[in-house]
Amino acid sequence: MLNRHDLLKAIDHTVLRPESTLADALQACDEAIENHFASVVVLPCWVPHAARRLTGSEVKVGTVVGFPLGASSTRVKAFETQVAVANGAQEVQVVINISALKSGEMTRVRRDLEEVLYASHIAGLTQEAQETLTQFVLETHYLTEHEIQAVSELVREVGGEFLVTSTGYAAGGASTDDVRLIRRTVGANMGVKAVGGIRTAEFALELLNAGATRIGTAWGVQIMQEFLAMMEPQPAGARRS
Amino acid sequence: MLNRHDLLKAIDHTVLRPESTLADALQACDEAIENHFASVVVLPCWVPHAARRLTGSEVKVGTVVGFPLGASSTRVKAFETQVAVANGAQEVQVVINISALKSGEMTRVRRDLEEVLYASHIAGLTQEAQETLTQFVLETHYLTEHEIQAVSELVREVGGEFLVTSTGYAAGGASTDDVRLIRRTVGANMGVKAVGGIRTAEFALELLNAGATRIGTAWGVQIMQEFLAMMEPQPAGARRS
Repeated sequence: MLNRHDLLKAIDHTVLRPESTLADALQACDEAIENHFASVVVLPCWVPHAARRLTGSEVKVGTVVGFPLGASSTRVKAFETQVAVANGAQEVQVVINISALKSGEMTRVRRDLEEVLYASHIAGLTQEAQETLTQFVLETHYLTEHEIQAVSELVREVGGEFLVTSTGYAAGGASTDDVRLIRRTVGANMGVKAVGGIRTAEFALELLNAGATRIGTAWGVQIMQEFLAMMEPQPAGARRS
Repeated sequence: MLNRHDLLKAIDHTVLRPESTLADALQACDEAIENHFASVVVLPCWVPHAARRLTGSEVKVGTVVGFPLGASSTRVKAFETQVAVANGAQEVQVVINISALKSGEMTRVRRDLEEVLYASHIAGLTQEAQETLTQFVLETHYLTEHEIQAVSELVREVGGEFLVTSTGYAAGGASTDDVRLIRRTVGANMGVKAVGGIRTAEFALELLNAGATRIGTAWGVQIMQEFLAMMEPQPAGARRS
């Protein structure tokens, strides 16, 4: 069974609302340090600020690229990735070209993935001892089962190591079915992040049990509190550590 | 009173849904040519395709930058603008840094505008005889009246010539009040586009009468048909031209 540590280490504390402020981003950094979350995901313009605030902590700096439409030109996505990494981002969520996928332009989708991965890799090399994790966002809400499988396989084929279900901007977000489908498609060795509408500890745990390794949410603090409360009533063997 | 021609020449035929396809973008181009709309606004990755399709027509090629969050790094927005123009975009809708505005970081907002305008200008010079029109999107839904005025003034101050109310991605879109406020703030000489939830000829006409010079909508064809039907029942002096 999942324990508190597993849940903590899975949470990407996410502040991407367009009207959120620099103060909101910095507060999320402080909350992430306090709660030992995996990362903070901030708007691209606040990456330098988050990187400074998180210096010396184990919390990673995350941001987004081509977000949330995924339809930027490939060279723009590659450049945006480089700038994000140069600014201090250690994890970059890049939205796949959803429109190209829906248009059946798989060569374009593939080239987009390859160029972004290359840019991320090269940019990562210039950061001392820093590994950059590139996370590709599928936006499953718009995709058929077949498309989810096809693009998940494509990401694995080009050497990607991490998939994200959703941006949080579509009408539908994460589902255990989608997580299971992605996990079944890519096998055990890739990261899978569930994003979108995750506001309760119960749902977060369901998604982790379905095969997610990360949970992207703006409600990380509430989810942790709820999780601790869930653990409390049990009489024995449920020590709060 | 506004006539058919005024309405036609005000419509920016817009296809920005993330799951829309290349075929949708090209169909919009054909519809825009047929209906003599002002422009087609497509996802950045389809700008070269739209530019080819619209060659020889009077319909402009439009696209978006930093869309819809507006929180990309300034250098990314500038580069994205350059790429869009190099690909054939004649009108570029750039979202202001909403988060920086909400954070009170007006110097950052201003620099963002200036760098994008410069990039757009320089990129425009490389296109033969092509003027690039940079349109700044405010996303009024998130802004107070004071913020709408402040950023509208800022755009005018840095030499911008065009404001857009909304991205169409926030919970609220265009309103006649916002259009009036922007028009009052910037005076008669700047372009003002209303965007977001404009699905009827009646609302489009209200917005134009409130001071908008352009209407960004995915329902341009329906709006025109409705407008023609509105004109028809009148017995005299209402010839369809």
